[in-house]
Formats: sequence, C-alpha cells, structure tokens
Amino acid sequence: MHYDKKSIDQLDRVTRLKLINSVTGIKPGNLVGTVSESGHANLAVFSSIVHLGSNPSLLGFISRPQTEEVGHTFRNIRQTGFYTINHIHPEFAKKAHYTSAKFPSDVSEFDACELSELYVDNFKAPFVKESVFKMGLLFKEAIDIKLNGTVLVIGEIENLIISDKAFVNGDIDLEESEGVGISGLNTYYSLKKIDSYPYARLNEIPKF
Amino acid sequence: MHYDKKSIDQLDRVTRLKLINSVTGIKPGNLVGTVSESGHANLAVFSSIVHLGSNPSLLGFISRPQTEEVGHTFRNIRQTGFYTINHIHPEFAKKAHYTSAKFPSDVSEFDACELSELYVDNFKAPFVKESVFKMGLLFKEAIDIKLNGTVLVIGEIENLIISDKAFVNGDIDLEESEGVGISGLNTYYSLKKIDSYPYARLNEIPKF
Repeated sequence: MHYDKKSIDQLDRVTRLKLINSVTGIKPGNLVGTVSESGHANLAVFSSIVHLGSNPSLLGFISRPQTEEVGHTFRNIRQTGFYTINHIHPEFAKKAHYTSAKFPSDVSEFDACELSELYVDNFKAPFVKESVFKMGLLFKEAIDIKLNGTVLVIGEIENLIISDKAFVNGDIDLEESEGVGISGLNTYYSLKKIDSYPYARLNEIPKF
Repeated sequence: MHYDKKSIDQLDRVTRLKLINSVTGIKPGNLVGTVSESGHANLAVFSSIVHLGSNPSLLGFISRPQTEEVGHTFRNIRQTGFYTINHIHPEFAKKAHYTSAKFPSDVSEFDACELSELYVDNFKAPFVKESVFKMGLLFKEAIDIKLNGTVLVIGEIENLIISDKAFVNGDIDLEESEGVGISGLNTYYSLKKIDSYPYARLNEIPKF
C-alpha cells in the first residue's frame, strides 16, 4: 500500500482516524487518575504518555481540544495540580478501555469500570490499586500545539510505586511486570522481551 | 518499591536515567532517516514518536538539546524540511540500536549498521528498505520545552508505504507487521495481540 498526501486526505474520517492512530507503532497503555475540585474521581485511558527527560523527571501526554463534555482529565489537573499515571495490565485491559466512554463528570470511571481507587501518603490524586506500576505527578506546564489545538501536558514525577516483580537484575522488565501496549484506538498487546543491547559505543560496534 | 521525590533525586545518574526512561511503559521503536544539506544520510533510533492528530496527520518526537557532536537528525530536518519514520522489526533490532552510537556526521549509520537506504518518488529523505512500515514527513514546527531544553519536533505525514501484511481485516496489526517496542534505553520487545475492543459507548458498557 502506498498512500500519498492526497490519498490520505481523501480517506473517510473513520478509516483515516484508525490508520493514522496506528502508524507510530506500539503505544504505552496507561490510566490517568485525577480528582476534580469538587472531589469527583476521574480515570481515563491514555496512549500518548511520552518521556521528556530524567533530570528533572518529566513526562508528557497529549490532551485533545477541551469541550464541556470530555476532557475531564486535563481540567482536573489544572484545578488540583496533581495526577497519577498507572500501567495497564492484561487482566484489566478491557476495563481500562471502557474508561474512554463519555461518562458525565459526576460519574467515577473507577466505579463504572470496576477499578479500585487508592490514595497514598496524602497524594492529591487517586492511584489504580490493580496496577503494579503507579506514578504520582505534579503538573508543571501545558504547551499549546497550535497546529491542531491539542495540548502537551507536562508533569514531574513525585512518587513511584512499583512492584518488586517489575525489576529483573535491577532493570524494569515489562514482560515480567505485564505491561500493555496499545495500537490505534482499541487494540491491546502484551510484550515479549527480545533482547537488551549494551550502550552503543563507537569503538564497540559488533559485526552484524 | 516506593520512591518519593527525594529518593528519586538521590539516585545516581545512570540508575535514575535507566529507571525514568522505563516508567512510561512500552515505547514505539522507530528509525528516523534524514539527509544533511551536504548530502550525508543519517539514521537514528527514536522511541519518542507520538501521535498528535489525524486531521491533519501530525506526529511528534522529542529531540534532546543539540550539540555539535550529536543531534544530526533535528539539524538535518531543519536544513531540508523532510524526514522519514520507519518501524523497527525484530530481525534488525540490534542494527537499529547501534545507530545510537555517536558516529561523526560524515558517517552514514545506514552503512555503519548495515541497513539499506531507499529513495522513493523524489522524497528528500531516505527510507529504510528493510522496514515494512515507512512514512515520509514534512517538518511543520519545533516547540521548545523550556523546562529541560528539549524540543518537540512536529511533522505532517506526506507518504505512507505499508506492506499488505500489516493489515488484518482492514486494521493495522502490529503482531503481523512485527512491530517492536522499546523499554528504557536498550531493551526491545515483540508484540502479541491480546484483543480489540469496540468504540466505548456509554450505553454499551459490558458486565466485566
């Protein structure tokens, strides 16, 4: 298949949405937990979490243009300053997916999708108890992407709560921790380790 | 394991780098192909490609602060306006990884890592012949992330060259196309499909 710009532009909306949401390759499957000013918990699946830097520890995600009906996650983050990011695992991938339904803001996706709120050390956002890989973030900055009205939401990691089973020889092992990847809008994948390669030094390039 | 901000700050540099590069979960494994003004091809592994929107079709990636010695990808993109993004597959994951060595700018990582340059339809950047999932992008905007000096590089998809084997019932299937995920700085994963779930409608929430 070879699509040029014209043939991409001519695809119908749904075909285009599904295709272009798939082209980056695998995306990390995470649930973002927040609470509104008025105390309503919110949980939403995101596949756009991206590492921005390790010192300080910054993660970003892409928030779509806000409306009254959707986008409670970013609204809550701006109101309270805090959010959690929790890895999805295969045993609750289906529940995680259904957090994407347009629930009214006074309905908690934790309740509707049967996932458990967990509050730790007075951190002002709910973690997902079922996740073995939980992070608490402090909101730092929102950068407008004017090209399409989306927003890059940036936070700094304040808490990392990780099960011992995620570590193999001191490194995170996403096969052992049962991390999940997402392709497109609705397909979930499990992960199988191929190999780890050393830090690539110029004088240590192997024969391939 | 429970790290708070203080214990994250106190980790030694390498431990912290490895840990924080792993926390997002799986990241897409891609090679970005460019050519310099003077005609030198460049190829670099990136795990930060992120979907920004489907209309227009925009992808972003994070470029680290530039120096003379590294960062030829973003320099070339600014010079020429074009780049390619190519999925990594297991059979050349090791070669892809070694493109991260700090080769001088007059050395082509295609040659050094034994991957094949492919030029299609006068597009002004080299594709990776071995990839079954190739994209050509037009540079649109670079947004500075002042919090840590990185840059969000945004491009629009101009070409999609995808093998028929990537499509199953009209959808991209990353298990069939043999997509690769990356965790941290140097661990590569293959993908196994768990399931696809329907678009989540409020009146169709299943019993879990």
